[in-house]
Amino acid sequence: MAKEKKLVEAITSMEEDFAQWYTDVVKKAELVEYSGVRGCTIFRPEGYAIWENIQKELDARFKATGVQNVYMPMFIPESLLNKEKEHVEGFAPEAAWVTYGGSEPLQERLCVRPTSETLFCDFYHNIIHSYRDLPKVYNQWCSVVRWEKTTRPFLRSLEFLWQEGHTAHATAEEAEERTIQMLNLYADFCEEVLAIPMVRGRKTDKEKFAGAEATYTIEALMHDGKALQSGTSHNFGDGFAKAFDIQYTDKENKLQYVHQTSWGMTTRLIGAVIMVHGDNSGLVLPPRIAPTQIAIIPIQMQKEGVLEKANEVKEKLGAFRVKVDDSDKSPGWKFSEQEMRGIPIRIELGPKDIAANQCVIVRRDTSEKIVVSLDEVETKAGEILDQMQKEMLERARAHRDAHTYEATTLDEFKQIAEEKPGFIKAMWCGDQACEDQLKEVAGVTSRCMPFKQEQLSDTCICCGKPAKALVYWGKAY
Amino acid sequence: MAKEKKLVEAITSMEEDFAQWYTDVVKKAELVEYSGVRGCTIFRPEGYAIWENIQKELDARFKATGVQNVYMPMFIPESLLNKEKEHVEGFAPEAAWVTYGGSEPLQERLCVRPTSETLFCDFYHNIIHSYRDLPKVYNQWCSVVRWEKTTRPFLRSLEFLWQEGHTAHATAEEAEERTIQMLNLYADFCEEVLAIPMVRGRKTDKEKFAGAEATYTIEALMHDGKALQSGTSHNFGDGFAKAFDIQYTDKENKLQYVHQTSWGMTTRLIGAVIMVHGDNSGLVLPPRIAPTQIAIIPIQMQKEGVLEKANEVKEKLGAFRVKVDDSDKSPGWKFSEQEMRGIPIRIELGPKDIAANQCVIVRRDTSEKIVVSLDEVETKAGEILDQMQKEMLERARAHRDAHTYEATTLDEFKQIAEEKPGFIKAMWCGDQACEDQLKEVAGVTSRCMPFKQEQLSDTCICCGKPAKALVYWGKAY
Repeated sequence: MAKEKKLVEAITSMEEDFAQWYTDVVKKAELVEYSGVRGCTIFRPEGYAIWENIQKELDARFKATGVQNVYMPMFIPESLLNKEKEHVEGFAPEAAWVTYGGSEPLQERLCVRPTSETLFCDFYHNIIHSYRDLPKVYNQWCSVVRWEKTTRPFLRSLEFLWQEGHTAHATAEEAEERTIQMLNLYADFCEEVLAIPMVRGRKTDKEKFAGAEATYTIEALMHDGKALQSGTSHNFGDGFAKAFDIQYTDKENKLQYVHQTSWGMTTRLIGAVIMVHGDNSGLVLPPRIAPTQIAIIPIQMQKEGVLEKANEVKEKLGAFRVKVDDSDKSPGWKFSEQEMRGIPIRIELGPKDIAANQCVIVRRDTSEKIVVSLDEVETKAGEILDQMQKEMLERARAHRDAHTYEATTLDEFKQIAEEKPGFIKAMWCGDQACEDQLKEVAGVTSRCMPFKQEQLSDTCICCGKPAKALVYWGKAY
Repeated sequence: MAKEKKLVEAITSMEEDFAQWYTDVVKKAELVEYSGVRGCTIFRPEGYAIWENIQKELDARFKATGVQNVYMPMFIPESLLNKEKEHVEGFAPEAAWVTYGGSEPLQERLCVRPTSETLFCDFYHNIIHSYRDLPKVYNQWCSVVRWEKTTRPFLRSLEFLWQEGHTAHATAEEAEERTIQMLNLYADFCEEVLAIPMVRGRKTDKEKFAGAEATYTIEALMHDGKALQSGTSHNFGDGFAKAFDIQYTDKENKLQYVHQTSWGMTTRLIGAVIMVHGDNSGLVLPPRIAPTQIAIIPIQMQKEGVLEKANEVKEKLGAFRVKVDDSDKSPGWKFSEQEMRGIPIRIELGPKDIAANQCVIVRRDTSEKIVVSLDEVETKAGEILDQMQKEMLERARAHRDAHTYEATTLDEFKQIAEEKPGFIKAMWCGDQACEDQLKEVAGVTSRCMPFKQEQLSDTCICCGKPAKALVYWGKAY
């Protein structure tokens, strides 16, 4: 019995120490293992399979909008990185530099890509000549490196996996349209597949991407009330095009600069799934993203016919991702393990169930037990998984809404920031000085100016001047 | 007309200069673009889509044998790389070294992975404790870097994409079994999907992987008679386990070293497809790997109903990867383009065809024209693609067999090597001195000792001592 409870007992409760709970879960659910390389984690099979499912679904959605995949070199020559001034200032401080190839020092240092705008621009300079060559809507799946000081699995690491889309368009309008299209695609994906509700909006100038004209973002609220930036989409205007000389001949035979965008989502999404849905028994994975959707756990497995029946039920559930746990552990241990790994439903099946032609389905999120006839198991399992997916999103949305506050005075703002973890909605004049001030006095940063603007009051929460926008504020990961 | 022929005229013929033909094809078919980083190429959409199809098919075959995907860091600390002596000697000379993170020099240099045995060993040391933890059958899809002096697209580049499988087993027998299993999986994949016949065999000690006990290989013959090593599978025995202290407690509670394997295939396979199947009109892609399998080219597109019919035919062909070329180029230009890109079949469809309720299917490999009723187009297209896939393999096998020679004397050997590009089968004593000698006098290297051994004579072709094995020799890419 002591042994059986071990898996669960080893987790710190989230109320006691959320950060430690998170670390315990990623380790105990075997999502990652620390490596001998500072700040780099190993994605174990259970963790990587989540990323594979994210990739598969996102990639299909990308391709449905005309995206084509490419692969660019992982190295950026220093002179290329230096071509766009704001961009290099943003990324050079956290660049990893290759200075030797074999035993020879390199004539020019190579940066391990922190992001690939400069490579794509160089490429587009070479392949775009005429309006017939536009638009280019390319994407790559790869890993990037940013030399971070403090790191946490999935949330912030020296190397992480992501996709980066880079597009070039004939007009400013088309670029803006693509920027917004991809942001909405990201938000829809997160809501429909990861069951995480998103605030969609625009970053302030202070928080935008190095070199962008405008950065759009989707922001999620974690269980502890902290905000997580979950995906961004940037409109570069023609800034990079001018720095890299990317011009095309239009229909009137005139030279024009292209307009560009880029957009990315990362393995950080796995951290969001953990921190939005997890509980004190471990992970809770939304059915649509779970590597294993159903764990069949035979009870009194040694009895004749039990394991055979379990495998028979698995066959019936061929439309889902199913595993039969036939290891030599006790059922109690297997239950804890299924809960820790966040497998959406488990099916308990013992001799008495078999005699009654039934099984017990247990939902991971609510612990609800549902007795189901074996004749109906496929339909019922499908219904329960759909229901669970839907309710997980609703629950996350209710939690987010319950932790979204409005402030109309600075005192109110400071009090909320101090006492109530969550989003704070408040009006802002558009001045960076006020943004800096709010960070200093309340410890929060601007998350975004949401697309759905409201007029909470007429004046800036900080300086009292006329308000220009409603802003979501929060403490960020 | 001049404009229409441009695409084709720009290719050097393969008989004139095979290397230049190859370079022309990869560029004109838009598979790659050169980048500003020495030795690194950009995979353009048409090239990357071939890799995506290879990945998808191989990954499914891996998973069917129990392989799980993981992701390891891209950096290897120098001290970790140094742990296995033969291994570091093999890879250090071509390693890229990161020496700076941001503006800070690193205390220890990091190697950009040339291959990940050392990282997997460190990982296995941490997670393998008991016989219950075995086997581990992990794989990763990633890019690796080797500081090559001379490079060619797909065949040899500073950075390339691949998969690397790394396994740990309880016994030597199980490790050997997995090594051979993966080699056969590779060969079957190449034959069934890429339509490239393989010689399966074992590398000589001289040619084996740095740190391996045995390396197995699949070797293909290119159109110009040169050999291409297309995939390798290594049995490490317990050498790495001893260097990295990877031990498990067996059922009798005794400590044992694990036995390991690794195996990999790379984007070089795309080079093999080009050089085995291509012709003077460009690429010829086997239907199973072609990103686009069918190009529908409307004739007299401006006439009423033609484009509509073309799209209707596309709908009927929903089981295949189909594109309608409705660009404003002439049909002749579109034909050349489809040929250059190696799209397996094209469907020509004009007003006369529509009136007769038919279309013309043209095979890329044979130029055969087949008139097909529009009522039967789906069935017929499927049959033609299957037939083409099968015949491409047969043709490649016939070419390979016609260019495989036997030598029983050294003079004969030298003459074949000089006059007849291809494989040479000859007996060998097992001594590296003879291997070195044959390279010096005939310019060939040992490709492998095939699984299917034959006894051509009793003595070594080189020294006349008793022969130990039949070896395939050839000039390698």
